[in-house]
Amino acid sequence: MAQQHLDPPTDPTAGLVSGDALADYLRAQATEFLRSLRQHRETGGASNGSEESVDAARALRRSARRISGSLHTFRPLLEPDWSEGMRPELAWLSGTLAREHAYAARLERLLGALNRLSGSSSLPAQTPSAVGNRSAGAEPGTPGPRTQPAGNLTVGAAKAGALLDRQLTLARTRAHSAALQALGSSRFHAVADSVAVLASEVPLTPAATTTDLRPLAAAAQDRLTDAIAALPLVTAGHPYNAEALVHGLSADTAPQPQDAPWHQVRLLLRLHRYAREVLYGEECPTDVRLLAAGQALNRHRDAAEAASAAASAARTPRIAPATAYALGVLHADQRHEVEAARFAFQQAWQMEAVRTP
Amino acid sequence: MAQQHLDPPTDPTAGLVSGDALADYLRAQATEFLRSLRQHRETGGASNGSEESVDAARALRRSARRISGSLHTFRPLLEPDWSEGMRPELAWLSGTLAREHAYAARLERLLGALNRLSGSSSLPAQTPSAVGNRSAGAEPGTPGPRTQPAGNLTVGAAKAGALLDRQLTLARTRAHSAALQALGSSRFHAVADSVAVLASEVPLTPAATTTDLRPLAAAAQDRLTDAIAALPLVTAGHPYNAEALVHGLSADTAPQPQDAPWHQVRLLLRLHRYAREVLYGEECPTDVRLLAAGQALNRHRDAAEAASAAASAARTPRIAPATAYALGVLHADQRHEVEAARFAFQQAWQMEAVRTP
Repeated sequence: MAQQHLDPPTDPTAGLVSGDALADYLRAQATEFLRSLRQHRETGGASNGSEESVDAARALRRSARRISGSLHTFRPLLEPDWSEGMRPELAWLSGTLAREHAYAARLERLLGALNRLSGSSSLPAQTPSAVGNRSAGAEPGTPGPRTQPAGNLTVGAAKAGALLDRQLTLARTRAHSAALQALGSSRFHAVADSVAVLASEVPLTPAATTTDLRPLAAAAQDRLTDAIAALPLVTAGHPYNAEALVHGLSADTAPQPQDAPWHQVRLLLRLHRYAREVLYGEECPTDVRLLAAGQALNRHRDAAEAASAAASAARTPRIAPATAYALGVLHADQRHEVEAARFAFQQAWQMEAVRTP
Repeated sequence: MAQQHLDPPTDPTAGLVSGDALADYLRAQATEFLRSLRQHRETGGASNGSEESVDAARALRRSARRISGSLHTFRPLLEPDWSEGMRPELAWLSGTLAREHAYAARLERLLGALNRLSGSSSLPAQTPSAVGNRSAGAEPGTPGPRTQPAGNLTVGAAKAGALLDRQLTLARTRAHSAALQALGSSRFHAVADSVAVLASEVPLTPAATTTDLRPLAAAAQDRLTDAIAALPLVTAGHPYNAEALVHGLSADTAPQPQDAPWHQVRLLLRLHRYAREVLYGEECPTDVRLLAAGQALNRHRDAAEAASAAASAARTPRIAPATAYALGVLHADQRHEVEAARFAFQQAWQMEAVRTP
């Protein structure tokens, strides 16, 4: 197997990086996928989320994303029927597996924010279930009299926490069942079989071993930089621009259209990172700028979805005004997190591209 | 009259700046006070807020603050009984006159924020009464069904606007009546008489004309810089520190204890500015740093009070959840304005002290 991409590990421009490098990468990711799958089964993936099982599911998603992303970026080098058929299946799988984790993380983020907003004394319980139990047992069903206004709001924070706990725990439980069902389905077994084939024999086109990967990787980078150039980075770089909360109360909500270009950049940044991994192989140097930018965009996505969950919870029928008030504060807080994440992305992106070998 | 403070207008350190400069300043401010008072009466101060009447009231407060501040900073140069008796009366007067304007400005700020948060379409009416009329007529009393969630929140914004309009207009009307009553009271006439005396004869101590004002002005500046040194400026200079909304839902609210040191700096900055005016006289050069810092602190105060008004409105009994939600978003938005103002102050204060002559 040719190892051109490893010979000059810090300078992939020195020679041809051919389809063999892509084959190496896909084989390695497919092997990792199968290893994670085995681990997930052995650690009892069917039981409700042990730590090993969660790690295994994460590793499974990680390799599924990398395979899917590489099939996309380098598709001219791969058998079209096979790769076009595989990508949606991998997307379905990683999407299904991601959902449970996403709901758990969202609940944790929202309860953490409620704790922060309430000071340390009013919501001492840190865990979802504890908050839920505590608030469900302790509070009245209606707002207190006007002479105890502050207590009202504290009760509101506790009730908001309990409501979010109920809604997101239910969603997480459903996502868990859906993931288990997916992992037992014939559709999943077909994906696993395809990945097993990939681990031994990558279906490259005949010309792939003499085709240079770098123009395709460069095209992925261009799509990223074009999308970033279209972002409102001047505004984002101006702290407290109050942009993320504009339309926070408008009729057009959930999801906010202004978030979409940022989510798109997040996906393109990921594809660019995977393309670099293909070119550089296992010696791929860390690009701290890409790392920081990616973290900012993850935070952007998480905060946007948390804000949306708070707004959604506020539409629950028959909630108390104090609960709705707390959810409004929480929504705005998370939208400001969205704005802060955009600022962090702008700061990261304007850094010089420093590459630590 | 000695004009030492005008001889070297850009360099007050060149010679002695004595009590005569203070007497000049107090006489000028007292004359301005009496002029504004006359204008206020002529423009029909008793009628409900014509533009000239509002301007006159503002000029009246402006000179009252300057007289009161100077009496404080330079009190060793003034007859103690007289100046100690006059200060609380001036504070009472300017406080009483300021309230009406403050409620009007607070309502304008909150409705402006609601418009911004709702996008341009959902709250087209810009004026308080129009918002009030529109929302009072158009909306249901309870939240809509879950299938129309977004409309709910828009209704919430309109209802929140109407509620704030009602509450703050009522408060403003009461403040207006109180101001009118104050201006007709014997207490006010006693203040006006004292100011009239001040316009012709400033009650300096015998030693005042040979006492240097500069150490007293320097002490006022020291009090300012000490108070600023105690502010959490490192945090404030870090954008999106989320500090201003901490305890946003806690039991200890209204007013937020974390705001107090900033409000104190605002007052000390004002005293420092007035002391500079006394030293430099009418040729007092503009200090853009002080100007920017003062504007940031005014914005801090306005946003803090607006946030408090939104929280207070949310405690109104029997409001709809959608209204409470909108008020929660609004509260958080204004607390982020508080944080933004602290950032602006930090940025202004770290500027080089540039003085434009």
